[in-house]
Amino acid sequence: MAHENYDLAALKARLGGIRTEDNPALVRQKSRDFYWYSPTLKRQLDAVNGDIVAFPTSEEEVLSILAACFALSIPVTPRGAGTGNYGQAMPLAGGLVLDLSGLDKVLEIAPGRVRAQAGAILADIDEACAASGQELRLHPSTYRTASIGGFIAGGSGGVGSITWGGLRDLGNIVSLRIATMEANPRMLHLTGEEVQKASHAYGTNGIILEVEMPLAPAYGWIEAIIGFADFGEAAAYANALGEQDAILKKLISVIAAPIPQDYFLRHRKYLPDGMHVVLAMVAPVAGAAFESFTNRWGGQMLFRSDLLGPEEAKGLPPLYELAWNHTTLRALRVDPSITYLQTLYPFPDQLALVERIHAELGDEAPAHLEFVRFDGKVTCFGLPLVRFTSEQRLEEIIARHEAMGIPVFNPHRYTLEEGGMKQTDAVQLAFKREADPAGLLNPGKMIAWEQADFDFDTGRTYLFAGLERHAAGSGV
Amino acid sequence: MAHENYDLAALKARLGGIRTEDNPALVRQKSRDFYWYSPTLKRQLDAVNGDIVAFPTSEEEVLSILAACFALSIPVTPRGAGTGNYGQAMPLAGGLVLDLSGLDKVLEIAPGRVRAQAGAILADIDEACAASGQELRLHPSTYRTASIGGFIAGGSGGVGSITWGGLRDLGNIVSLRIATMEANPRMLHLTGEEVQKASHAYGTNGIILEVEMPLAPAYGWIEAIIGFADFGEAAAYANALGEQDAILKKLISVIAAPIPQDYFLRHRKYLPDGMHVVLAMVAPVAGAAFESFTNRWGGQMLFRSDLLGPEEAKGLPPLYELAWNHTTLRALRVDPSITYLQTLYPFPDQLALVERIHAELGDEAPAHLEFVRFDGKVTCFGLPLVRFTSEQRLEEIIARHEAMGIPVFNPHRYTLEEGGMKQTDAVQLAFKREADPAGLLNPGKMIAWEQADFDFDTGRTYLFAGLERHAAGSGV
Ligand SMILES: Cc1cc2nc3c(=O)[nH]c(=O)nc-3n(C[C@H](O)[C@H](O)[C@H](O)COP(=O)(O)OP(=O)(O)OC[C@H]3O[C@@H](n4cnc5c(N)ncnc54)[C@H](O)[C@@H]3O)c2cc1C
Ligand SMILES: Cc1cc2nc3c(=O)[nH]c(=O)nc-3n(C[C@H](O)[C@H](O)[C@H](O)COP(=O)(O)OP(=O)(O)OC[C@H]3O[C@@H](n4cnc5c(N)ncnc54)[C@H](O)[C@@H]3O)c2cc1C
Repeated sequence: MAHENYDLAALKARLGGIRTEDNPALVRQKSRDFYWYSPTLKRQLDAVNGDIVAFPTSEEEVLSILAACFALSIPVTPRGAGTGNYGQAMPLAGGLVLDLSGLDKVLEIAPGRVRAQAGAILADIDEACAASGQELRLHPSTYRTASIGGFIAGGSGGVGSITWGGLRDLGNIVSLRIATMEANPRMLHLTGEEVQKASHAYGTNGIILEVEMPLAPAYGWIEAIIGFADFGEAAAYANALGEQDAILKKLISVIAAPIPQDYFLRHRKYLPDGMHVVLAMVAPVAGAAFESFTNRWGGQMLFRSDLLGPEEAKGLPPLYELAWNHTTLRALRVDPSITYLQTLYPFPDQLALVERIHAELGDEAPAHLEFVRFDGKVTCFGLPLVRFTSEQRLEEIIARHEAMGIPVFNPHRYTLEEGGMKQTDAVQLAFKREADPAGLLNPGKMIAWEQADFDFDTGRTYLFAGLERHAAGSGV
Repeated sequence: MAHENYDLAALKARLGGIRTEDNPALVRQKSRDFYWYSPTLKRQLDAVNGDIVAFPTSEEEVLSILAACFALSIPVTPRGAGTGNYGQAMPLAGGLVLDLSGLDKVLEIAPGRVRAQAGAILADIDEACAASGQELRLHPSTYRTASIGGFIAGGSGGVGSITWGGLRDLGNIVSLRIATMEANPRMLHLTGEEVQKASHAYGTNGIILEVEMPLAPAYGWIEAIIGFADFGEAAAYANALGEQDAILKKLISVIAAPIPQDYFLRHRKYLPDGMHVVLAMVAPVAGAAFESFTNRWGGQMLFRSDLLGPEEAKGLPPLYELAWNHTTLRALRVDPSITYLQTLYPFPDQLALVERIHAELGDEAPAHLEFVRFDGKVTCFGLPLVRFTSEQRLEEIIARHEAMGIPVFNPHRYTLEEGGMKQTDAVQLAFKREADPAGLLNPGKMIAWEQADFDFDTGRTYLFAGLERHAAGSGV
């Protein structure tokens, strides 16, 4: 339902030739993402809806839309492919959803870098780069559907992070071209550490129109699954493989039994009962070294993509679609009551912490680790599945992690701060003052803007006032 | 002078059409390397001389030479470019010097790998790979003169080790083709961890004929010199830069004042008095991130190759020729009394150890650090210059390092063990039994072979008996 305050008729008149849609089913579809991963977010955000969707196909059209919405005080929530899973792309205050999927051109490819429009799909960028033997350093496991702009604005890292760290690391985003939300929108060019003003800001302080990203060599990565009878051994092997500086790799995940057996249906025949598995993507040139290394550890090579016949390979998803958040997705497909957490096991205690939490919670929250480089060291994130019973129990599980010294990036929160460092990001807040002075971009996602005195230490969940009004208004 | 025991006439007769030389001046030249870096080695090895040099140009010729020498019990010491600086390539028992510089073909280039003959010069390999946008991951600072076979047999790492670790790391050598020293020499193909049988074995257990190496993307690396007033700050910055996972780099060296000012003559004008410097090679795509990072640290950008005019750039050596062992070389050219050490500052205490040893010995042994990845972490080697006074004082300086927990890889020893881990390498010894059963390859370099009961714990220096005989014989 439309938010009575927004003058949509005036908006449409102003937008003239730009394609918009207010068909309710379509608007509803474009107002959601994978927020339903979280039972908490599902409860909170199920009724969220924008009022209209715009589909610009050029920078000029984006600027016209921003100017029009600014003039009419209509909120704008940018959207790439809508695969975020914290409700990042959901228009909490209604208004216009700015679908950027029409800005999908790959503009320039050079040794070590690519420039593309924000709506370009990650896999499409790599396809364009393939002729030069290059590919993006990093991608989320939603590689085949997600946009580069959405990744930068809403994601954090993924496949490739074992070598390159995350998006937060200086150098993983070369530069951004950003449109401000003002009467006369400006184009800003951010480079060096300035990109951090707008990256992982959920589009609250500027619309990313163009990105420049570093490239790495594209190899036909070997996909491997290695089995261990003992979970601790699997984790220790994965950590040690991560520390092999000369074995180039793109993915190292550890997944405790019985997750792989229960949920990796298309790979099921490679996964003996009870085996804990490590998923790895390794450069072909390191094949023999990788094999020697795995033998030293007594790992059992359960699957190697380079040894499959073409018939056998058919019908298998790429290995990275068993990893990162896809592990959760596969579990959810089999058992809709599953949810998950995101944790960090700080170096150098990662293996001890993993063992401790797994010993305590392994049945209720079976382990899933993603090894990465983090501040120059190899350590792991946790994305444990959680057999959900209640929000209260989920909070208890989070509290147990934190008590052990395992920070939790709460995926059951829709704000930047609560999903992240639980504190104001002064740089991003300052940039919002400059680039979105009226606070019209993706309202409700940056607590520091909405409620400057919010006290993170209370542990209370922030509730965006606009959302409550809206939920009340829509009768949910 | 000829070693009376070797039947050189018979050898020449057997070698037929293969080019050999026994002109004394040439034999003498081909019997030495950069051993004179060390006053100790200079004293011990100055009289060392082979009897004849062979210059094969094909695998077949190498095999004929090996068979002939085996039949006549003549020792064979392989030689690439002779840039080793521990006397590795010096024929301690005389005999034949096998100059492999004629086997210099680059055989095959593919994405991520190159295959070349052992005598190929490193820079020539990269030149051949340039068309594919690739280059070797690692090279010593003797890149423009050293051979790939000599690097693998006698070197350890260098430029590139900040990203890829060292040659000892599984994966930095893909495979080796090796000729054995037998009546009928065999060709062996080593791959995976097997390459460690023959790498860094000084050619004592096989002649490397062909190598397969991994490649990395070739970028026009930015060369930068960053200045700090405080030495500890320079080291801490370098360490932190090493830990920036997304800033791709190839070199991070720290050199304490006044070394740069006194010895880097051609860069002198960029080096204000008293400044401690960091040398860095950074990928162009990371230029802006690198600049932001350096500003955060308050580092002063003294030199950036990408900002020089072509006139200014002319006459400057490449930056890596100020680093690794070239730092020492430049010092030696100005002050022949200089020598140096090779140390490892173990993670995670590297910065504290550097500060402590520098505080104690910084004037007598000014600091030179090379940051590397080592077992998956960033840490540094030390290559401190030493203002040499006596061998005894040098031993005291080594002892001070070891007492503090700083291992020393003694560059004043010509044996594998004493220059390395001070223990028998059982794998290499076993391989020598197989590949050189008569012990004719580069005699005197592997203590485990010559004197199985040598006790490393006494701290006594090993003396190769053949060398003593030879020195006596030659009247030195
Ligand atoms: C199964 C699954 C697996 C996943 N795996 C990963 C993973 O491995 N790593 C990871 O980091 N994430 C992961 N995610 C989350 C998400 O898929 C990625 O972050 C993805 O890159 C988001 O891209 P998108 O185009 O779908 O963005 P959207 O969901 O459309 O948007 C994400 C956020 O960015 C904002 N935004 C979008 N485009 C722009 C723009 N041009 N300018 C400004 N703001 C913009 C939106 O408003 C929103 O706040 C996963 C999600 C799922 C469901
Ligand atoms: C100024 C200077 C800087 C240096 N910097 C570095 C550095 O950064 N990193 C580093 O690791 N080293 C360094 N070194 C040492 C040396 O230059 C390198 O290790 C170089 O790669 C050796 O190659 P080469 O062809 O000169 O080998 P040589 O000196 O000819 O031989 C080295 C050893 O390998 C053996 N050998 C040679 N070829 C073969 C073969 N085909 N099969 C079997 N055995 C063989 C020889 O018998 C000898 O024991 C430096 C030396 C100097 C003088």
